[in-house]
Amino acid sequence: MAQDKRQVDAITSRDVDFAQWFTDVCKKAELIDYSSIKGMFIYRPYGYAIWENMQQELDRQFKATGHENVYLPLLIPESLLQKEKDHVEGFAPECAWVTTGGSEQLEERFCIRPTSETLFCEHYKNIIHSYRDLPKLYNQWCSVLRWEKTSRPFLRHREFLWQEGHTMHATEEEAREETVRMLNVYADFCENVLAMPVTRGRKTDKEKFNGAEETYCVECMMHDKKALQAGTSHYFGDGFARAFDITFTGTDNQPHYPHQTSWGVSTRLIGGIIMTHGDDNGLVLPPRIAPVQAVVIPIAQHKPGVLDAAGDLLKRLTDAGIRTKIDASDKAPGWKFAEYEMRGVPLRVEIGPKDMEKGQCCIARRDTGEKTFVPLTGLEDAVKKLLDSIHDNMFAMAKKNLEDNSFAAENLEQVKEIASRTGGGFIHTKWCGELSCEMAMKEQAGVTSRCMPLKQSGTAGKCPVCGKDCTTDIIWGIAY
Amino acid sequence: MAQDKRQVDAITSRDVDFAQWFTDVCKKAELIDYSSIKGMFIYRPYGYAIWENMQQELDRQFKATGHENVYLPLLIPESLLQKEKDHVEGFAPECAWVTTGGSEQLEERFCIRPTSETLFCEHYKNIIHSYRDLPKLYNQWCSVLRWEKTSRPFLRHREFLWQEGHTMHATEEEAREETVRMLNVYADFCENVLAMPVTRGRKTDKEKFNGAEETYCVECMMHDKKALQAGTSHYFGDGFARAFDITFTGTDNQPHYPHQTSWGVSTRLIGGIIMTHGDDNGLVLPPRIAPVQAVVIPIAQHKPGVLDAAGDLLKRLTDAGIRTKIDASDKAPGWKFAEYEMRGVPLRVEIGPKDMEKGQCCIARRDTGEKTFVPLTGLEDAVKKLLDSIHDNMFAMAKKNLEDNSFAAENLEQVKEIASRTGGGFIHTKWCGELSCEMAMKEQAGVTSRCMPLKQSGTAGKCPVCGKDCTTDIIWGIAY
Repeated sequence: MAQDKRQVDAITSRDVDFAQWFTDVCKKAELIDYSSIKGMFIYRPYGYAIWENMQQELDRQFKATGHENVYLPLLIPESLLQKEKDHVEGFAPECAWVTTGGSEQLEERFCIRPTSETLFCEHYKNIIHSYRDLPKLYNQWCSVLRWEKTSRPFLRHREFLWQEGHTMHATEEEAREETVRMLNVYADFCENVLAMPVTRGRKTDKEKFNGAEETYCVECMMHDKKALQAGTSHYFGDGFARAFDITFTGTDNQPHYPHQTSWGVSTRLIGGIIMTHGDDNGLVLPPRIAPVQAVVIPIAQHKPGVLDAAGDLLKRLTDAGIRTKIDASDKAPGWKFAEYEMRGVPLRVEIGPKDMEKGQCCIARRDTGEKTFVPLTGLEDAVKKLLDSIHDNMFAMAKKNLEDNSFAAENLEQVKEIASRTGGGFIHTKWCGELSCEMAMKEQAGVTSRCMPLKQSGTAGKCPVCGKDCTTDIIWGIAY
Repeated sequence: MAQDKRQVDAITSRDVDFAQWFTDVCKKAELIDYSSIKGMFIYRPYGYAIWENMQQELDRQFKATGHENVYLPLLIPESLLQKEKDHVEGFAPECAWVTTGGSEQLEERFCIRPTSETLFCEHYKNIIHSYRDLPKLYNQWCSVLRWEKTSRPFLRHREFLWQEGHTMHATEEEAREETVRMLNVYADFCENVLAMPVTRGRKTDKEKFNGAEETYCVECMMHDKKALQAGTSHYFGDGFARAFDITFTGTDNQPHYPHQTSWGVSTRLIGGIIMTHGDDNGLVLPPRIAPVQAVVIPIAQHKPGVLDAAGDLLKRLTDAGIRTKIDASDKAPGWKFAEYEMRGVPLRVEIGPKDMEKGQCCIARRDTGEKTFVPLTGLEDAVKKLLDSIHDNMFAMAKKNLEDNSFAAENLEQVKEIASRTGGGFIHTKWCGELSCEMAMKEQAGVTSRCMPLKQSGTAGKCPVCGKDCTTDIIWGIAY
């Protein structure tokens, strides 16, 4: 059999050119490919499998919190999109429009959904009549289109995969609880599954979602000190309900407007895990969503019994619920090591004749590179412990990066200095609440508001721009 | 608390107006709703949950047969769609076209995918180079758009949910094996999960997929004797590979064209289970994909201990892996009975004070209406057995309908008589293979060819139209 000619090519160093490193990882780990339409990417099997694992865990959480999945149409009539003024202003400029169906010119053009608030409202109007019809707790898994001018794998696609939750509640209080509940689901998911520490906060009016009263977010810091908005949860009040004339008869027998939320995360999270955890050898995947958690590699596999022993390890680990794969191909072990490092597989399990004699295998961790010999007796538990330990270590390293690059600042000059020195960072200041000061930060220090943390200190201070006394804590940074 | 005013309205009788009965069931069982765009439907939670259960089981089968999921773009540039002549001729007339992105008129228009052969080929050209890159066994879960003139829930949507498998193989033999393998996966799924007996066959050239060399199908008979094409599997040969210039270097170091397949099933299967199993009380769901397999209904729930006893049953059945729900609302038991019958829940489990005394519950089967008292000891096993028994009975009833309405015919007059008497039926004849005879059947007997069964008798006979000697067995019917 001919030797495979493909080699694991070196990738750009992460600290030399982070953007190029990122693109290299996406391509070399075979997460993504380009299509012939700019900004529309192909999710390859390995990239899609990461998303499937994320979906599975999130879907479980959504259902555990009482939500049901639905699927609404891909297309939105222009007149429907226009019903809520702020919403259409925000989205119309980046819609793709369908004007022809079959051979006929359409009387009204339809946009491909950039988000589905308007479609959900139209449906809710049909199915919400009484307080007994509430709450409606719906979620949709789908793709959305936004005709962006620039694009980058996972971070900015013209078409991306996501989920969008859309809920309706009888009272403001319930809707506000839902908004925060789902923010917390996202935060827990990022931290406990993706090993990405988050800051929970609320967006300024400038940065909030078009049509929302309030937007909450989880913000993460990437290895290059830039910020990534990992998920958002919006409280709409009854604005859309009024625009769409959705009412229900309350227990008081009077008509009321329901209160609404929406919340979403997307495949952008895959970009987040790459930029949080990856290194110069490629991807480093959080064990809990890694498509392959352990790869078994037979050493000197032509020697008697080695392939059987490796196959036995595969079976044992698979039976124990660990996502395991074997590579018994004729490629050299060194090639395989580099390949599975590039792909970010958390554990590499090697077994060869010497190991078999000693009743052990050799396990290498992707996060630290550390190699240990592990007895075959009790291997399953040892592997599970290692996977947990990798998760914890990855979280701790990301947390350290976040803490090492979080700074307090008191004036615009300090903010500017920190941002230009670190290339980002999470810069904590007070803020007076004025748009003009927020704009000045952008223009003079090159940072945008990331969020007002949910945990506010309550202490008094001064706005770094206008110097006014104020108490609101805010975080600035440079965002993806 | 106010009594719910909603009643379970009667639906049209199945034998009076099958089409209206079907629409009633879709609406009243809350499977689907209409949107403001003609032919684009809303999959409501209960309808979507059926699809999720189908997806889960099919996805497991696809992965067990070595397939990987991917996601390719929603849009196809017109020039890409045009690369394969037969394919574009078939699909272009029913495409929806995007002509504007953001504020700019596009230089080339893009269609929303009606199917993704062309996109997969474009991608395969990038990633297939050597025989070592083969086979590629990909599947995609997504929605597709076909700008149909008429529409019906589940059966004909302008947008519908489906999966499309697309595979590439080094040899014709392998590709042909794959085509039949996936046909068998569909057939087994229909029979063992959906309780829908199928006929496996091959389509005539007239009925095959645009661009395919051969199309295989599973055909089912609905309660009204009409035929439903439940799934298709296509063998493409190397036609697309040539059109897209996809080649690989073989073991002989020479360039070769790979051989291709595609295969798909859609939410049309939900239409199939409604029309196969439903009755005048509404939906009858096959237990293996029912979102709720058993509903627990407390009787005289105000009496002491009843709600606790019902809650205990819910917990026990849920713990045993049975999808169970409780309805402890203040609605009358009679209302609840009718509601869960309408929704096709396979088992209703009632428990009241008398049952508690006797250590039993009362279980009603949706398929037969039969009620039996079941001891609480060993309830879980009894329920599992009942679910299997319901599946078997539903399959047997559908099989009887298929057999009772399968006929042999020798000439056009007989075919016409059977079709008009039964409103369809599976009419078995010989066929000479000529398109003109196939067309005559349509024009003169009102039937279309469903398939040439994979199991051919091999006996000789005469074409019912031209009278020529021939051996091919074919089935005619009236199709959805």
